[in-house]
Amino acid sequence: MSKPLNPKKEKKDITINKLKGLGQSIVDDVSKNEIPTLNIPSRGTGNIVYDEDKRYYVLGDRYGKRSLGNVKQIKKMGQMMHVSNFCKNLVSTEKTATLREMYYVSEGWGMGFSDQNESNILAEDLEVTVGASREDLGLMPEEDGASVYGDILLKEGDVEINALKSGKSGYTISPTIDEVEFIGHNVERVIAVETMGMFHRMVQEEAYKKFNTLIVGLKGQAARATRRFLKRVSTELKLPVYICNDGDPWGFHIAMVIISGSAKLAHVNHDLATPDAKFLGVTASDIVKYELPTDKLKEVDVLRLKELAKDPRYRNKQWQDEIKKMLKIGKKAEQQAFSKYGLEYVVDTYFPEKLEEIEN
Amino acid sequence: MSKPLNPKKEKKDITINKLKGLGQSIVDDVSKNEIPTLNIPSRGTGNIVYDEDKRYYVLGDRYGKRSLGNVKQIKKMGQMMHVSNFCKNLVSTEKTATLREMYYVSEGWGMGFSDQNESNILAEDLEVTVGASREDLGLMPEEDGASVYGDILLKEGDVEINALKSGKSGYTISPTIDEVEFIGHNVERVIAVETMGMFHRMVQEEAYKKFNTLIVGLKGQAARATRRFLKRVSTELKLPVYICNDGDPWGFHIAMVIISGSAKLAHVNHDLATPDAKFLGVTASDIVKYELPTDKLKEVDVLRLKELAKDPRYRNKQWQDEIKKMLKIGKKAEQQAFSKYGLEYVVDTYFPEKLEEIEN
Repeated sequence: MSKPLNPKKEKKDITINKLKGLGQSIVDDVSKNEIPTLNIPSRGTGNIVYDEDKRYYVLGDRYGKRSLGNVKQIKKMGQMMHVSNFCKNLVSTEKTATLREMYYVSEGWGMGFSDQNESNILAEDLEVTVGASREDLGLMPEEDGASVYGDILLKEGDVEINALKSGKSGYTISPTIDEVEFIGHNVERVIAVETMGMFHRMVQEEAYKKFNTLIVGLKGQAARATRRFLKRVSTELKLPVYICNDGDPWGFHIAMVIISGSAKLAHVNHDLATPDAKFLGVTASDIVKYELPTDKLKEVDVLRLKELAKDPRYRNKQWQDEIKKMLKIGKKAEQQAFSKYGLEYVVDTYFPEKLEEIEN
Repeated sequence: MSKPLNPKKEKKDITINKLKGLGQSIVDDVSKNEIPTLNIPSRGTGNIVYDEDKRYYVLGDRYGKRSLGNVKQIKKMGQMMHVSNFCKNLVSTEKTATLREMYYVSEGWGMGFSDQNESNILAEDLEVTVGASREDLGLMPEEDGASVYGDILLKEGDVEINALKSGKSGYTISPTIDEVEFIGHNVERVIAVETMGMFHRMVQEEAYKKFNTLIVGLKGQAARATRRFLKRVSTELKLPVYICNDGDPWGFHIAMVIISGSAKLAHVNHDLATPDAKFLGVTASDIVKYELPTDKLKEVDVLRLKELAKDPRYRNKQWQDEIKKMLKIGKKAEQQAFSKYGLEYVVDTYFPEKLEEIEN
């Protein structure tokens, strides 16, 4: 496989061509004396399918038509052209904007949105219609991604960054993570943890040396940029990715969104999901085995666990067993509960045992 | 003024001595055949005073007694000795722990806390009693601080970090910010902004070059580490600090907590408040002058603004005028609303005009 000479420029050209193509299709309709119409893939629940081969949610093949022949759709068509044009300018000038900024910019279009929800949905319409993620279109999420600590060398523009030398809080994955090049690394795996408390614990106990690993601090639900980063280390660097979260339904969910994507983002899961990533813990079995301090499952936890049991992403035996076991013991535990045995225990005992178990 | 040879070691020794002193006072009481008693400064609202000279909240001189002669207080005294000992070990071994970790560690003490709120309060008791911040005691907040972008060179342990070369999301202020040395810089000021959307806008428009400034992305309410960083750049580097937030009561409050501290943390405001920091905007006057897109003040905004008007921290004329004006126009505006005039406007027009106004 030959590598493109300048992958960034190539991607930029592809996106611009997609956007131009959208405009051209309208022009073509007009010149053929037809009513300009767009096919917009449906993002409704009926069109979100779990793909067993890909191991994540994808969009099915249903779509809706948006036509200038329908009075109710004229404004939406016009807004879509404006958004497309705005994105084309962003990509051409190598700038980005937040959805919030675009909403304010749209005040000058003479066909403004009634609220930001409307402009957000239109941006998603554009994503699915042209088949490009919002990041490709220059529409960046506000939120930064996770913190990364460990021996990897990255390049952003002219700047080289060593995530072992970015301070104790590590390198922050920026929303523009796709423009970051992986220059080199000296690790064997990646361990992502839910809380920054655990991230700092692992840095302090030198887990990056002990396990020859990158440490990724997710800060709760993983941002898009984080998921993209984990996908890239998994596919480009072929590194195994492990996720260690709190032992509760929310921790399971955070891991699963990284692994198999969310239904809501079915149209971009091919860029974001990392089906080879593995959930390391905290499992219900860990709670029992390590006699962790626990909290009782709340009613909402029980309901959530029962939902997860029916979710296709949790179909494999290990997940089913762990969900059943958690319901049976009626308890949940936080990552930091290992401190019961001293601050070092999690790095000195728990992680080595779990890694041994999962890698052998 | 002679500089200590190793300020970090000196600080460590001071903290250890404070903790030893606490234990010694108990031993002394016992050897004098007196009932061991501690004086714990009160953190009740009646003992929180706004200090006009210092320009932030401080604790008054009221205190409560905690005595081993009072059956109800025996457990609390014992817990305090355990927490002190735990902190002494942290500081001696140059480790840190989160409050959550300490809560779990306390399971082994045989006089555990009934919930984490109880152990958090006890940690605060210890802070005020020995006169050391929780960070000095090794008890770190979980949350990281703000993002910093710009020409400053920092040193954490053996690692030198250039906040201009840490990636587009900048250098993340770690909870252990007091261990970071300022090696050098080439800036004239610091501009802190409320949202990461505005942070990325400023990085993209090269505001760090145009205004020779550090850009600090607060991510909403500033973390303790962020406040400590801003205090340090203000006092150690003598840099003017400006804060630009959303133009609403919440944005005002975020700025004011940086400037004059919070009542709740009156016992550590001397480490955290930056009374010389200035609120740049968005003001009610800006909303009118720049004809910004606005939202109507909600009832809760109006109530909050009326509270702020009575708060001693907002006593000066400028704040009083701006609060009155916002109530009069009945409107609020977000930082990103400047995008109405194009993405570059905020950096090309708004900031230069505001800086000119405030610096001349």
